[in-house]
Amino acid sequence: MKKTLKKRTMSSKKAGLPPGTPVYTGDSTVSEVKIIMMDYNKESCIIKPMKHFKDSIPFFDNKSVTWINITGLREVNLIDELGNFAGLHPLIIEDILHTQQRPKIETYEGYIFIVMKMIILSNGNMSENFDFEQFSLILGKNYVLSFLENDHPVFDEVVNRITNNMGKIRNSGSDYLAYRLIDVIVDNYFKMLEVLGDRMEDLEVELVEHPTRETLHKIHGLKRELIFVRKSIWPLREVISALERDEGYLIKRQTHVYLRDLYDHTIQIIDTVETFRDLIGGMLEVYLSSISNKMNEIMKVLTIFTAIFIPLSVIAGIYGMNFKTEVSPYNMPELNWVYGYPFALGLMAAVAATLLLIFKKKKWF
Amino acid sequence: MKKTLKKRTMSSKKAGLPPGTPVYTGDSTVSEVKIIMMDYNKESCIIKPMKHFKDSIPFFDNKSVTWINITGLREVNLIDELGNFAGLHPLIIEDILHTQQRPKIETYEGYIFIVMKMIILSNGNMSENFDFEQFSLILGKNYVLSFLENDHPVFDEVVNRITNNMGKIRNSGSDYLAYRLIDVIVDNYFKMLEVLGDRMEDLEVELVEHPTRETLHKIHGLKRELIFVRKSIWPLREVISALERDEGYLIKRQTHVYLRDLYDHTIQIIDTVETFRDLIGGMLEVYLSSISNKMNEIMKVLTIFTAIFIPLSVIAGIYGMNFKTEVSPYNMPELNWVYGYPFALGLMAAVAATLLLIFKKKKWF
Amino acid sequence: MKKTLKKRTMSSKKAGLPPGTPVYTGDSTVSEVKIIMMDYNKESCIIKPMKHFKDSIPFFDNKSVTWINITGLREVNLIDELGNFAGLHPLIIEDILHTQQRPKIETYEGYIFIVMKMIILSNGNMSENFDFEQFSLILGKNYVLSFLENDHPVFDEVVNRITNNMGKIRNSGSDYLAYRLIDVIVDNYFKMLEVLGDRMEDLEVELVEHPTRETLHKIHGLKRELIFVRKSIWPLREVISALERDEGYLIKRQTHVYLRDLYDHTIQIIDTVETFRDLIGGMLEVYLSSISNKMNEIMKVLTIFTAIFIPLSVIAGIYGMNFKTEVSPYNMPELNWVYGYPFALGLMAAVAATLLLIFKKKKWF
Amino acid sequence: MKKTLKKRTMSSKKAGLPPGTPVYTGDSTVSEVKIIMMDYNKESCIIKPMKHFKDSIPFFDNKSVTWINITGLREVNLIDELGNFAGLHPLIIEDILHTQQRPKIETYEGYIFIVMKMIILSNGNMSENFDFEQFSLILGKNYVLSFLENDHPVFDEVVNRITNNMGKIRNSGSDYLAYRLIDVIVDNYFKMLEVLGDRMEDLEVELVEHPTRETLHKIHGLKRELIFVRKSIWPLREVISALERDEGYLIKRQTHVYLRDLYDHTIQIIDTVETFRDLIGGMLEVYLSSISNKMNEIMKVLTIFTAIFIPLSVIAGIYGMNFKTEVSPYNMPELNWVYGYPFALGLMAAVAATLLLIFKKKKWF
Amino acid sequence: MKKTLKKRTMSSKKAGLPPGTPVYTGDSTVSEVKIIMMDYNKESCIIKPMKHFKDSIPFFDNKSVTWINITGLREVNLIDELGNFAGLHPLIIEDILHTQQRPKIETYEGYIFIVMKMIILSNGNMSENFDFEQFSLILGKNYVLSFLENDHPVFDEVVNRITNNMGKIRNSGSDYLAYRLIDVIVDNYFKMLEVLGDRMEDLEVELVEHPTRETLHKIHGLKRELIFVRKSIWPLREVISALERDEGYLIKRQTHVYLRDLYDHTIQIIDTVETFRDLIGGMLEVYLSSISNKMNEIMKVLTIFTAIFIPLSVIAGIYGMNFKTEVSPYNMPELNWVYGYPFALGLMAAVAATLLLIFKKKKWF
Repeated sequence: MKKTLKKRTMSSKKAGLPPGTPVYTGDSTVSEVKIIMMDYNKESCIIKPMKHFKDSIPFFDNKSVTWINITGLREVNLIDELGNFAGLHPLIIEDILHTQQRPKIETYEGYIFIVMKMIILSNGNMSENFDFEQFSLILGKNYVLSFLENDHPVFDEVVNRITNNMGKIRNSGSDYLAYRLIDVIVDNYFKMLEVLGDRMEDLEVELVEHPTRETLHKIHGLKRELIFVRKSIWPLREVISALERDEGYLIKRQTHVYLRDLYDHTIQIIDTVETFRDLIGGMLEVYLSSISNKMNEIMKVLTIFTAIFIPLSVIAGIYGMNFKTEVSPYNMPELNWVYGYPFALGLMAAVAATLLLIFKKKKWF
Repeated sequence: MKKTLKKRTMSSKKAGLPPGTPVYTGDSTVSEVKIIMMDYNKESCIIKPMKHFKDSIPFFDNKSVTWINITGLREVNLIDELGNFAGLHPLIIEDILHTQQRPKIETYEGYIFIVMKMIILSNGNMSENFDFEQFSLILGKNYVLSFLENDHPVFDEVVNRITNNMGKIRNSGSDYLAYRLIDVIVDNYFKMLEVLGDRMEDLEVELVEHPTRETLHKIHGLKRELIFVRKSIWPLREVISALERDEGYLIKRQTHVYLRDLYDHTIQIIDTVETFRDLIGGMLEVYLSSISNKMNEIMKVLTIFTAIFIPLSVIAGIYGMNFKTEVSPYNMPELNWVYGYPFALGLMAAVAATLLLIFKKKKWF
Repeated sequence: MKKTLKKRTMSSKKAGLPPGTPVYTGDSTVSEVKIIMMDYNKESCIIKPMKHFKDSIPFFDNKSVTWINITGLREVNLIDELGNFAGLHPLIIEDILHTQQRPKIETYEGYIFIVMKMIILSNGNMSENFDFEQFSLILGKNYVLSFLENDHPVFDEVVNRITNNMGKIRNSGSDYLAYRLIDVIVDNYFKMLEVLGDRMEDLEVELVEHPTRETLHKIHGLKRELIFVRKSIWPLREVISALERDEGYLIKRQTHVYLRDLYDHTIQIIDTVETFRDLIGGMLEVYLSSISNKMNEIMKVLTIFTAIFIPLSVIAGIYGMNFKTEVSPYNMPELNWVYGYPFALGLMAAVAATLLLIFKKKKWF
Repeated sequence: MKKTLKKRTMSSKKAGLPPGTPVYTGDSTVSEVKIIMMDYNKESCIIKPMKHFKDSIPFFDNKSVTWINITGLREVNLIDELGNFAGLHPLIIEDILHTQQRPKIETYEGYIFIVMKMIILSNGNMSENFDFEQFSLILGKNYVLSFLENDHPVFDEVVNRITNNMGKIRNSGSDYLAYRLIDVIVDNYFKMLEVLGDRMEDLEVELVEHPTRETLHKIHGLKRELIFVRKSIWPLREVISALERDEGYLIKRQTHVYLRDLYDHTIQIIDTVETFRDLIGGMLEVYLSSISNKMNEIMKVLTIFTAIFIPLSVIAGIYGMNFKTEVSPYNMPELNWVYGYPFALGLMAAVAATLLLIFKKKKWF
Repeated sequence: MKKTLKKRTMSSKKAGLPPGTPVYTGDSTVSEVKIIMMDYNKESCIIKPMKHFKDSIPFFDNKSVTWINITGLREVNLIDELGNFAGLHPLIIEDILHTQQRPKIETYEGYIFIVMKMIILSNGNMSENFDFEQFSLILGKNYVLSFLENDHPVFDEVVNRITNNMGKIRNSGSDYLAYRLIDVIVDNYFKMLEVLGDRMEDLEVELVEHPTRETLHKIHGLKRELIFVRKSIWPLREVISALERDEGYLIKRQTHVYLRDLYDHTIQIIDTVETFRDLIGGMLEVYLSSISNKMNEIMKVLTIFTAIFIPLSVIAGIYGMNFKTEVSPYNMPELNWVYGYPFALGLMAAVAATLLLIFKKKKWF
């Protein structure tokens, strides 16, 4: 638990460093940067791993769509070089590398820069927490640059559709490609919501059937997770909305309807997250009042035992007193009665029965 | 309980699938798609079940209003075919079939697309939960397409009024028909509110007269239900408002006053749901403080019993000690008193009475 | 309590009925509709009860202001007839008769339609609940139609001022009359606030001086009442504001300053209701923490009694053991001490005193 | 406490009275109205108490700034007369006299009307509550009329600076004077915040060092006070903002920068009040959890005592049983042991020690 | 704790003082004002401590950028003199000296005035509280004036980059310098967030592993700190946003992209603060329910002990009664049984075991 908070919120940018200094602040597990270039148009499609960006220069110049996907951000110099090569503002390079960015969109002359969070199930972990990785995208006239922190197979389907010329991608421009990539990321959120939903349903059952202290920790863990999910998704609304309303030449008219659809999905995701928050709040209330109820139960047991047995104890105590019966007939004559003992036991039983009846009437059990 | 959460919130859209892929994600109980076509104008009215959409082509062309109502969304191909036939965007078909949509309105060239939630009492269920089904509607120049997930008799009254030429429908265009269908759906919300209101009033009485742990679960169940109702109804406000403010040629001037009326109903429904939420919140507070009060009562009983009987027990214990009276006159001379025993009993009675008075004064009973 | 919730929130409009169907949904105590017509200008003033609206036709035509006040909405046909006669839209008639409307304003060609809530003390009731009745008003070029559910003397002062030609009314148009009627309704809210304020002050005193379980129910009753008051008053703000900003020809320039004043009053009422809500919230907190404090007090008493007397009981128990002193000198030699008994009692006193001192030091009493 | 609520929230305006009726609703302690007139320009300055407004007519006509300050609003006729004389709308006179106004600004032809709350420490009161008095101001072309409910020396400094020609006032117009008067009122809020801040700091210390039930009442008293302070100050923001943005000819360009400064102060005051509210909320939480902690402590003491001494009591009880040792060797042979008594005492000590160790391990003390 | 509240919220401005009066209200630890002047352009750079502002006159006139940094605000006259010299409005000087300002931006003719909070770790303090100091900045055509309350080395890096001609500063105008200074201050917030984040993570661990009463105080201390941090940072958003949108001639086009980056940082900081608030809220809930759980545990122990041992005590008490066995065979025949004592002990063991089993079944331990 300790590490997530910092990783998720703090930008480790060193105060005092001038703006535009490229420093990678993430926690990559990829040892090497992996660069894949795709270049396609209606007729043809080339896919090619690259070592240096210079290799892609000829592709940039022609009219086909060029997509460069970079996985792993460790080699800062490489990214920096790409930035210079594509004419990106130094602040963009900085943002790509500072992986604690808030989702945002920035429009520059000739290209649009988008940052989003990719939410991934961290499989190694028993409690199924999520990893929040940064996804950056630059959409230019006829190229798309995309940056992932780690190697995930999220874009395989897209690559597949391009190479096999399925669907609309090959017939559309770079804007449609950018839309598809963002759409894949957003679709991933639905997967995450499904996992969260499963956990919530399990918790609801657990809460009703056998709530334990562990249940509370699970509820709070879920609540905590939702705080971060929400933080990552809320700004997305504005980002997609800005993209949809963009009136520049980069996004074509027929793509807008897809962006509106994407916007709807975003709203729906936000809606669901909010609903989850409301439901979690209700679960907490149920838990807390079930604790109160339990306390009440325990108190009742305690009170019934105490209230019934203490009077009996006093009766026994009275007949255990040592007043001398021989001194006077007033001193504990019961001790000499033929039925003294049965009388005492009967008295006890009567007291206990009466009290039990009273508690029964009060509906204490 | 387990199933509702997922059904109500998650879009089961598979991540990675390209946009516009028609997949039905609902849970239809209708085995077959049922298509009814109505075609009417001032003079005449035709009603006709259909198997294929091609049969409706001649009706589409003339100037009368054509209404096609589709019940059951299982046969994806049929819906898809209808979309192609009516020239709908693939994303619309996708939205009609993905039945976890948020209520929304989308204006396309030549038609308006509206998605809403229909809230239906699930009769099989003892706890009277609601089913949330999707209602989609496409309003064109002289046609209306409507889609229901299951077979409900909601539109019977409308059909009846058309065939019998009652009211304004036969004399109005497709926009008025669309308004009437939406109005029927919204009127259904009032029915739902009435059911909710009945349950709340029962709960209020139960809460005051004999609150049990079951009451808490009912309150939370109601609260949970309201979260989903609210989620389904809030966006409707925007939808109806957008429809009312629409300045296209599809909605005629005289229909706007009816849409304003519809908007008022929507606001009123939202208002009532919010009021219910406030009332539920108050009920929870009452419940929780009644638990606290009960705990207080139990504590008082416990304390009174303990505080009165423990001192008596000590007195009895003292006179049960075995100090030898024969050794010295200081050792328990009371045991040899003529009135020793009555004295001890009197002492006990005095102590008990004093304590009772003190507690009485403290208003503990 | 049971009936108010439904009466206050649910529109009993039957789903499926076509829009514009006039059905009275209120709960009138007036057996007959009462219609009073006033017709006045600077020079003259006529006041006249009416049976049919046709009698008022000549008055409508001239240039004087004609005010028709209808009390009781049971005779739907009469209201419907009036609507047709005055050329009102069917939806307006429906709204006048559906008395669960939310306050609203609607501008039609030639007239303005306003719906508000009138809040009246229900005098028969001990707990001083409020009745929420609907007040509808139609402002035309030179006429005003007003509708009340029941017979209340709210407008007597206005009638009086017209007949006696006091103030500005006789010299002003229909807009000023409409303003005055609304002003009277809004002034009534101040009366209601005064009643609520009195009850709150009583509760505050009760809460500090002798809070009982009854106090909690009163607080919650007040809170519940405020939920409904708020719901009735909030939308009014928008209504009056729309009226003030109205730029049509119906409202004259010199009336605007009065409407602004009315707007201020509305804001002030809303403000006060919000303040009441805040104060009620604080009272609940005070109540709940006073319960907690009481529980603490009870716990302390219990603990003090238990902690002091149980050790004494043990001491008494020890010297009540039956070890044979004659067997060995180690067996309970105290029993044979000359001062054995005083020693035992002294030991008890010492233990009790010590414990009392400790609790005193802990400031438990 | 009882009186403040009504005094602070309710406008005692009698329902049914026509608008513009001048009735004083405040609670003035000033027996007589006190009127001071100042007339000044760069060169000269006249200060003069007045009995009738007619005396001021010659001053109004010239080009110097005329300031009339009225203290005490009891003599309604005098105020009414002034209104007529200065050509004020009757509604303004009503607002000046109805001293439960919400802060507001109203722009009329030729003058601006401003109402604010003046917050004054009520010195007679031990608990340092505040009095909320109304301050009204009318800013005309070359005159300022100001109205105070009671005689406070708030404006002495301003008067002083005018008579001694210090600062900018003498060189500026009526707008600067109005600004200065409002500034003085707003500065007073800082004083109030300082008093509130002192009380909060005292409470914070009290809360940490020795929280009692009294502390809770103080916290709630403060919270209650803040509700009213907030209600009085929030609308001020809008008032000052409207004044700053005023584009009429009454406020000169060089005064705007001062009004902006005033606006900043207002924001800062609101900010501080909100911070106080947050802090009070935190204090309540601390208080409530300190109660819970205390309850826990008490429970622990109770449990330790009970758990340790009841077993001892049972042991003592066992050896106090009267089974006849002479009947059989199985009957309580311990009683005849040589070390029977020490054994019993040792057993008790062992049990107590064991339990103490267990509780120690559980960190209960 | 006592002093921070006042220092952080109250403006000590004396009511009644005229606006624009320069009074220092801070709490400077710097004994003397320290003035450093830098004057630089592409070619050259001069750095020079100053005693009087007159020394800087020649530098102001030329076209290079002149930066004067003033540390310590005690010598009011000096600041006042600078204000006059640079032609600043008296209200600005007042704002610079009143160090409880809310962050704000004000645009004057020829210069922009910005006030911000600098948040510094107060190192002397064990509990790592923050100091809130005011940073003021005036941006003119070719000069920047900056004011710090105390001597902190925050700007050393900037000075260094200027003297060594690193980065863009030397090649840019005064607007870029101003941006860099603000950027440094904002970067400092990240440092503060890191400290807060560390403390929160420690608290989260402490909360789960061994929550004590101290933990609660730490949580509340953190919450309190966040209230003030939030108050200082929220308005910053508006300030930076206004700066970014500024369309005057003072800020050059190429600087805007840096200001947008700064704006993003501000949003991110606010976001993180809000997330911290949410997390703190969750921690409080966890703490409180862990108290409830503990109380439950204690109650269980108490109840188990009481419920098991009190019956035993009663049994022992019964056989300790003194009924005479010789009087009748009904009086305590058990006392004469051969196995009477073992029977009694066995009875006790049976009762205890049964109860233990019941509690075990109830999962009480």
